[in-house]
Amino acid sequence: MSFKNNRITRLFDIKYPVIQGGMVWCSGWRLASAVSNCGGLGLLGAGSMHPETLLQHIQKMKQATDKPWGVNVPLLNPGVDELMQIIISEGVKIVFTAAGSPAKYTPLLKSHGITVVHVIANSRFAAKCEAAGVDAIVAEGFEAGGHNGREETTTMNLIPIIRRSNTLPLIAAGGIGSGEQMLAAMALGAEGVQIGSLFALSKESSAHAVFKLYAAGAREGETMLSLKKITPTRLLKNAFFDLVKTAEDSGATQESLSLLLGRGRAKKGIFDGDLENGELEIGQVATLIKEVKPVSDIFDDLLNGYMQAWQRLSLLQKGNE
Amino acid sequence: MSFKNNRITRLFDIKYPVIQGGMVWCSGWRLASAVSNCGGLGLLGAGSMHPETLLQHIQKMKQATDKPWGVNVPLLNPGVDELMQIIISEGVKIVFTAAGSPAKYTPLLKSHGITVVHVIANSRFAAKCEAAGVDAIVAEGFEAGGHNGREETTTMNLIPIIRRSNTLPLIAAGGIGSGEQMLAAMALGAEGVQIGSLFALSKESSAHAVFKLYAAGAREGETMLSLKKITPTRLLKNAFFDLVKTAEDSGATQESLSLLLGRGRAKKGIFDGDLENGELEIGQVATLIKEVKPVSDIFDDLLNGYMQAWQRLSLLQKGNE
Repeated sequence: MSFKNNRITRLFDIKYPVIQGGMVWCSGWRLASAVSNCGGLGLLGAGSMHPETLLQHIQKMKQATDKPWGVNVPLLNPGVDELMQIIISEGVKIVFTAAGSPAKYTPLLKSHGITVVHVIANSRFAAKCEAAGVDAIVAEGFEAGGHNGREETTTMNLIPIIRRSNTLPLIAAGGIGSGEQMLAAMALGAEGVQIGSLFALSKESSAHAVFKLYAAGAREGETMLSLKKITPTRLLKNAFFDLVKTAEDSGATQESLSLLLGRGRAKKGIFDGDLENGELEIGQVATLIKEVKPVSDIFDDLLNGYMQAWQRLSLLQKGNE
Repeated sequence: MSFKNNRITRLFDIKYPVIQGGMVWCSGWRLASAVSNCGGLGLLGAGSMHPETLLQHIQKMKQATDKPWGVNVPLLNPGVDELMQIIISEGVKIVFTAAGSPAKYTPLLKSHGITVVHVIANSRFAAKCEAAGVDAIVAEGFEAGGHNGREETTTMNLIPIIRRSNTLPLIAAGGIGSGEQMLAAMALGAEGVQIGSLFALSKESSAHAVFKLYAAGAREGETMLSLKKITPTRLLKNAFFDLVKTAEDSGATQESLSLLLGRGRAKKGIFDGDLENGELEIGQVATLIKEVKPVSDIFDDLLNGYMQAWQRLSLLQKGNE
């Protein structure tokens, strides 16, 4: 199986149009290198890294794989200038930016020959990406875990909206954790997929084992878009979520919600495995994830599932022409 | 083009696996017969009809088409027994039920040889449908307009969840208003699609012209799932929506929201065209709908779009085997 007829695999020089999303407390060098070694694109998630931590991960990454990989940088990070300097001086070739204006760092990164991808959730920001000279975009739907767009546009609607209004190579994200979902994303007009939750719950993810087990057991309706008065964030239900919901239902202000949220909740939940008090960020697709597996098994399942879905769809089309 | 290799077209004896959703104040005999005459399955929406109105529409329907058609009955309707008696005595052959237990009316309808389909938004109710002897299910995602499931599961996730846990013929709904979305639904495991918004905004829909124009111009983020403390309902933003949002944001109780909602808001907005005070129910896919067209043009666009998406996907697959 090959995906050569595809702008995403060509842009990154990868075998499969599968990008592992950069995720706080999950995507260090172990996960990202495993994904790249399987033929996808692994991304270090700089969002939860101090500059020296990022430097260490970049150096480990260089030893762990000779395949293409990149770094994801949320632009709301206060230390982003320093992170970008490390990325440039270490010769990183691919950078995904998110949560900010694509105009801010794209020229600098491009001037160093870096491929730049920006994550968006609406067509207004997609247009900004095209204007800023970004190489490709990730369009992320309402289903996605963690921080999320205010429009609540689902992947099913977002991909056609973006595809019709924008010519950039397009990667779909949000609600993709199986072969049939990957095929559906391609049917909608995407050329690649960014997968978060499925890799967050892999063996190689740096998330805490109890978080992985808890999230992989999520039932329908057990993740919800929460904290909409601050930054909309998809959370898995737990005691902390219940606190937030009770506060929100009784009309809590942005200020009191920020106080309730405090600092370091995502680390507490995802990295330290505090299932009660932590902020458990995961996508809605967790419902389809039943097991914590090594990345290589995840790739096998995903690609087999994709081919099965393709064969099933082809069969359904017989007599359609 | 034919869709013969498909349990949905065979079940209803229709040409295309396209069902027009039963929608309050939109789907009378004009819309439903136009859809059936185009080769889809038209449904009268009994949710907004008095028994005598339903009877009239059934009789008009019989004159307007000799193709298969059905009636959609929301089971929360207080007059549902009477509606069912009319359906049975008039010899209606297909009934879609929603918003209630599939166990309640399925045996009665089946005993009269009626094909029964039930609308669900989670796997628990899908299992109940299988147990109740329902012939097919509609799985409706978070994107859909009007009343909606509490789990907020999007179509991208819901269809694989249901497909993996249930063997019934499966119709996808929510976020489907274009050919590529229809193809994506099939890729996810559905065998047919139920389309609401696109037909609600057709020429033949009984919705008010100003509602159609307003909804067809909806931008990203302009429909939102609202009224979650009563029944989650996707509404288009307007003055009434803003009132509800302000009340919800400040912690309004279920009682005060019910009072604010009052009665007859959907009729006021959709049928009377009161864009300020009405409840404007429409799906998120309205963003992709730019024009009010006749049903026959909608079918042409949809099926051409489907074939184009299929050809594009096939091209992307070349070299994949």
